[in-house]
Amino acid sequence: MSQIKISLDEKDIPKQWYNIAADLPTAPLPPLGPDGQPIGPEMLAPVFPMNLIEQEVSTDRWIDIPEEVRQHLYRWRPAPLRRAVFLEKFLDTPAKIYYKDESTSPAGSHKPNTAIPQAWYNKQFGIKRLTTETGAGQWGTALSFACKLFDLECKVFMVRISFDQKPFRKLMMQVWDGNCVASPSTETVAGRAILEEMPDTPGSLGIAISEAIEQAVTDQTGQTRYALGSVLNHVMLHQSIIGLEAKAQMEKIGAGLPDVVIGCAGGGSNFAGLAFPYTQDKINGADIEIIPTEPSACPTLTRAPFAYDFGDVACTTPLLAMHTLGHKFVPPPIHAGGLRYHGMSPLVSQCVVEGLHTPRSIDQVECYEAALTWARTEGFICAPETSHAIAGAIQEAKKAKEEGKEKTILFTYSGHGLMDLAGYDAYMSGNLKPYELPDEELLKTEAILNDLPPAEMRKSGKW
Amino acid sequence: MSQIKISLDEKDIPKQWYNIAADLPTAPLPPLGPDGQPIGPEMLAPVFPMNLIEQEVSTDRWIDIPEEVRQHLYRWRPAPLRRAVFLEKFLDTPAKIYYKDESTSPAGSHKPNTAIPQAWYNKQFGIKRLTTETGAGQWGTALSFACKLFDLECKVFMVRISFDQKPFRKLMMQVWDGNCVASPSTETVAGRAILEEMPDTPGSLGIAISEAIEQAVTDQTGQTRYALGSVLNHVMLHQSIIGLEAKAQMEKIGAGLPDVVIGCAGGGSNFAGLAFPYTQDKINGADIEIIPTEPSACPTLTRAPFAYDFGDVACTTPLLAMHTLGHKFVPPPIHAGGLRYHGMSPLVSQCVVEGLHTPRSIDQVECYEAALTWARTEGFICAPETSHAIAGAIQEAKKAKEEGKEKTILFTYSGHGLMDLAGYDAYMSGNLKPYELPDEELLKTEAILNDLPPAEMRKSGKW
Repeated sequence: MSQIKISLDEKDIPKQWYNIAADLPTAPLPPLGPDGQPIGPEMLAPVFPMNLIEQEVSTDRWIDIPEEVRQHLYRWRPAPLRRAVFLEKFLDTPAKIYYKDESTSPAGSHKPNTAIPQAWYNKQFGIKRLTTETGAGQWGTALSFACKLFDLECKVFMVRISFDQKPFRKLMMQVWDGNCVASPSTETVAGRAILEEMPDTPGSLGIAISEAIEQAVTDQTGQTRYALGSVLNHVMLHQSIIGLEAKAQMEKIGAGLPDVVIGCAGGGSNFAGLAFPYTQDKINGADIEIIPTEPSACPTLTRAPFAYDFGDVACTTPLLAMHTLGHKFVPPPIHAGGLRYHGMSPLVSQCVVEGLHTPRSIDQVECYEAALTWARTEGFICAPETSHAIAGAIQEAKKAKEEGKEKTILFTYSGHGLMDLAGYDAYMSGNLKPYELPDEELLKTEAILNDLPPAEMRKSGKW
Repeated sequence: MSQIKISLDEKDIPKQWYNIAADLPTAPLPPLGPDGQPIGPEMLAPVFPMNLIEQEVSTDRWIDIPEEVRQHLYRWRPAPLRRAVFLEKFLDTPAKIYYKDESTSPAGSHKPNTAIPQAWYNKQFGIKRLTTETGAGQWGTALSFACKLFDLECKVFMVRISFDQKPFRKLMMQVWDGNCVASPSTETVAGRAILEEMPDTPGSLGIAISEAIEQAVTDQTGQTRYALGSVLNHVMLHQSIIGLEAKAQMEKIGAGLPDVVIGCAGGGSNFAGLAFPYTQDKINGADIEIIPTEPSACPTLTRAPFAYDFGDVACTTPLLAMHTLGHKFVPPPIHAGGLRYHGMSPLVSQCVVEGLHTPRSIDQVECYEAALTWARTEGFICAPETSHAIAGAIQEAKKAKEEGKEKTILFTYSGHGLMDLAGYDAYMSGNLKPYELPDEELLKTEAILNDLPPAEMRKSGKW
């Protein structure tokens, strides 16, 4: 019972990010523009700074982490790798369960791993102000924090229902000088139009994205850009530090390659962060099962088609090749707000298509049961999103017991749940019911995707 | 800018606690019973298990940490030691500022350092159930967590106004199976009496302590005991792991002894945890300034007399020799709930009497300003209590700049503030005003102490 927490000296912190685009057996399908043709970097220039766009389209395997970015990541990195010995004992499993703890960042999740480089690259590019949207609040807090470090203004459009329900998330942003408003707001054309039509709307991530992008692209000074916390290639790149550190830590204790790698997947970034460096090993022949876990209420990877679709409800993004429930899909109000997304990282989607990742959906009731088991054995209170990774790890540990195999399981613990205790309350009070997305809903998905651009896009004139 | 976070290998985690009672130049004054005579260990037996009472009265310099307790502390220990390079830069100070981060425990503060051994020793003694009180909720969550690890029942009496205002603290306790009720409750004689008299009372720590002790001592099975999260000698002992680890970490990087050691002090435990191992060096001749910081609204060490007084409002504890504002003193409702205590650890008080520690009071407005500076430079959001240590460190760093001295400052970062954002809101909204305790209040203190036992104690029949 000696190796519980494995630290790593600062000198061993990764100096480069890993880009899986260099190693995928089949090159990922490119984003498409309104003409149905692959878009060029310049088309993204009003939204993102060119140095990040270069990362977005890069196929270099290794990309240097700027020294100043590394110094800021040192604030809490290397993140602890721990062995869940108390959970192992409780499950009476022969499996060894390790987890990479991304909850120790100032914002409480893995999100600052990309918020910091995104803010830094924008600063280098001469940008003065970033806009973004946030649902549950994790990304908005992470970007507020990162912007403060580089003296950038940060504007966060927070889905109104979350804004009202989670006043403490807004306060966290204010502590870091972030300017958080409820969306729809009166500050944008898109927001005012929605408010006119539906003054009492609870808002949605789609609306918030539209407002954030509008503020970025309409700033006449050219000094505002937009930042996204998941899905895109450069976000997956920045998160690879999770898996690279984990590999160094596992090596340090002689644990070798894991048999199973698990992460929860909403847009895919914390999962990819751990999984992609191990996916490289798998591409090179290693026998590793790599499992993204997602809510059965929003089964993007397990039941939705791989198709071209918009990243947002308002159809303002390029078409991305990904697993998608359709950009008009509104996920049920499960507590894991970070997993309520219709689409998925194109790179993760491609790995699933290639059979490199084997996704699994898990119901939120089983996930909360896992979260409670976790808190009562390992001690820490996890985020509702993270509970989907823990539930997956518990399933695998039980399977190892049935099979009598001494497997090594590694998962990413994406964030703590201290700002999300209302979900625990609902579960402990018996107010959560299992929910499996009905097949009829998937028929709607097909209809949405069949009706898709480029034809519709051109008609809408939105691109 | 390389050494930001200093880790420590598990093998270097301390194997013994340090007991300052062995080294104090003058032996601390003993607790007194109702007859004005020093009490024997057997008088505490209905309240605490004998193995903890032995620690309470021990004068051994080093006491072994049981192997099983160490394993549980490994869940998050060794706690990180970090250098606050971003704050240093912001202050443009020649001082080096280090801090020991106790916020990474499952409960979010240093409290589990003693909750775990207290639960373990009770379990060893055959106890099945612990009772306690909690004000802001930190101690109640820590004890609930620790009890869960050893399969003990945990009953927490939470001051009603906090119970109503901080529903998430109660939920944290429930996650760990703790049974938290608002105090005064209908479950005790003391609680019912108060409710009869004042049905709308917001409650107080004094009432909650009375209820918790009553439930412990009246359990006819003899299987219930009471647990206290600060003040007592065995609590200070358990917290010494903070300073012992810090010394090992400072040694690892060749930083040597600090010039200034700082911690916030309410009952004294997080301060003593860091300070006592360094106080040993000071007793042995080292030149270290050791500063407990406290709120100017509750200036126990800086303005209150050193005297015998009760630890609780209801006069159920022995008389303790300590700095005290009088057991009837009701501190103003500052946000740092953990520092709202009329008394102080007798061991810390004795160090102040001997001139080993030089206490300082700081107003909460200056403390919140420090907390915001901290969040906007170092990134982490601290507890309102912890802000008193940060404010002290900033004062010292500014002084070092004025004097042109390259001092080394070390403080204890006792907890995160994620459950306490309402205080930040009040500060950022400009709703906090400075408050210095008026001299008239201290006259009341003198009256309380002059009117003290043993005479009054015997009359009350409460002992």
